[in-house]
Amino acid sequence: MHILIIGAAGMIGRKLTERLARDGTLNGLPIERLDLVDVAPPTAPSDAAFEVNAAAADLSEPATAARLVADKPDVIFHLAAIVSGEAEADFDKGYRINLDGTRFLLEAIRRASYVPRLVFTSSIAVFGAPFPASRVPDDFNLTPLTSYGTQKAICELLLADYTRKGFVDGVGLRFPTIVVRPGAPNKAASGFFSGIIREPLSGIEAVLPVGDDVRHWLASPRAAVGFLVHAAGLDGAAIGPRRNITLPGVEVTVGEMIEGLKKVAGETVASRIRREPDPAVSKIISGWPEAFEAKRSLELGFTADADFEAIVRAHIEDEREGSFVE
Amino acid sequence: MHILIIGAAGMIGRKLTERLARDGTLNGLPIERLDLVDVAPPTAPSDAAFEVNAAAADLSEPATAARLVADKPDVIFHLAAIVSGEAEADFDKGYRINLDGTRFLLEAIRRASYVPRLVFTSSIAVFGAPFPASRVPDDFNLTPLTSYGTQKAICELLLADYTRKGFVDGVGLRFPTIVVRPGAPNKAASGFFSGIIREPLSGIEAVLPVGDDVRHWLASPRAAVGFLVHAAGLDGAAIGPRRNITLPGVEVTVGEMIEGLKKVAGETVASRIRREPDPAVSKIISGWPEAFEAKRSLELGFTADADFEAIVRAHIEDEREGSFVE
Repeated sequence: MHILIIGAAGMIGRKLTERLARDGTLNGLPIERLDLVDVAPPTAPSDAAFEVNAAAADLSEPATAARLVADKPDVIFHLAAIVSGEAEADFDKGYRINLDGTRFLLEAIRRASYVPRLVFTSSIAVFGAPFPASRVPDDFNLTPLTSYGTQKAICELLLADYTRKGFVDGVGLRFPTIVVRPGAPNKAASGFFSGIIREPLSGIEAVLPVGDDVRHWLASPRAAVGFLVHAAGLDGAAIGPRRNITLPGVEVTVGEMIEGLKKVAGETVASRIRREPDPAVSKIISGWPEAFEAKRSLELGFTADADFEAIVRAHIEDEREGSFVE
Repeated sequence: MHILIIGAAGMIGRKLTERLARDGTLNGLPIERLDLVDVAPPTAPSDAAFEVNAAAADLSEPATAARLVADKPDVIFHLAAIVSGEAEADFDKGYRINLDGTRFLLEAIRRASYVPRLVFTSSIAVFGAPFPASRVPDDFNLTPLTSYGTQKAICELLLADYTRKGFVDGVGLRFPTIVVRPGAPNKAASGFFSGIIREPLSGIEAVLPVGDDVRHWLASPRAAVGFLVHAAGLDGAAIGPRRNITLPGVEVTVGEMIEGLKKVAGETVASRIRREPDPAVSKIISGWPEAFEAKRSLELGFTADADFEAIVRAHIEDEREGSFVE
């Protein structure tokens, strides 16, 4: 099996790469070759038992996509995007990378005259307020309130149409917000959801820009990689024509997140969260959905983290070698 | 008031032009100038009391849009598109005209640094089966099953995002199927909905390619022009961020349409309909929605035809000078 990861240098891309190197297979099929690309050159895993090619490539350049699919990878993970804050700040860059880049990829696959499985990372930002009082159903309309969400929604529509026409075998995944993201904060408005767990566990103060009652839909990086792997192996006929799937998540309020952190790591760690309301962040977050039915994803076999404490523990295990600063 | 109609040579464009020439005003404001463009040169009305400029222009050429908005029309009606059958048959042409053309227009408006009201004609083809058992609600998801529907859905998303960013003041209208279309059949899969009324009234046999139980959502050309005029004058604040509106229509089955034709024009006229099932047409139609709640459009003051007989009578009045072949 030949796999291509576009956006391989990002957090999820790196974790997916690590998992594929560790497993040596994808849904039971042996991996022979893995191509890793990103605007910054991705790091190839040292322990892979298969061929790995890592290279810098900019998908928003019209010629890039044809080169990436020239050797006809069987499975393509398209994770490349600029995040919501940056897409909101730089309108042209957002459309160039998040929309045009994806369209170039779809066209290159069509022109290559073969039909790979394409797993595309979309986002719950395709939805926008006002939401129903209960969990958002799978058939809720696409009314994004950010350019990022708009670009993801458009790519979903393209993915479904190219799949319907038989040009690609696409699956779009509406990821929950990924928490706890390791490493340095990124420009996403959702960054604090990770920061208030990650920084306190490192002995560092974290700023909480929204109220404790903010409710959101989360998945660990470990669960996110699981979603991608599962999507790569799904039977297209079972998915049907609605190719974009809202994934399962853990529904929590910020207050419940802090309680979960206390349970796993204690009062002292949780006391490192400082409340400093930021109306700009609150405004963006208020346009986001809080929780989903995600029925189709469960029927298709996707599985969420057990609860928020499991998300905190996964972070401590996967990123902190099992320990934290008490 | 300076008005631009893109797609002015099409059926709705011509009827909108006629109405503006007749009224001399748009929602009470006097019209000073009307620009008409289409790929084929539109015909300027002879009786207009204001300046009219008619010219051929291809919106899918990247340089066209900037020229069209150079004089900053206050209201732009963007009606230009290739129809569903053609967009399905020619994938590249569909995306070039129905998607890229609209995107060029939005960008040109943004670059012109002013904020006109842009009325965009979308379609109920943005929705796709399976549908709820009851009427489709306003917040139903966008899962088109044609390239045409996909292109319209993408343009809706762009229109909403450009409006949200303050680059344009857009309103997207999801038109019911327009019946009775005058003139020759076009390539739309929905063509028979007009044909089975128009041809029999002209003494000509019409072919019905689907069953009598097919249910659909219709508006007369007269109502369609009314929708466009109403949309041009809507208060943007009243619309809110969800800029794309499912319009009200008349819900009928093909059997009820034939009954309506009988009531208005008699048995002999209705007997000119010949049943000749076409599985290809039936397949396309089966992916279309049957009826809508359209609550928001009614709240915003859009009004449908009274019933299907009113649609037949409007055709006889507006297109046949009050008579038909008995």
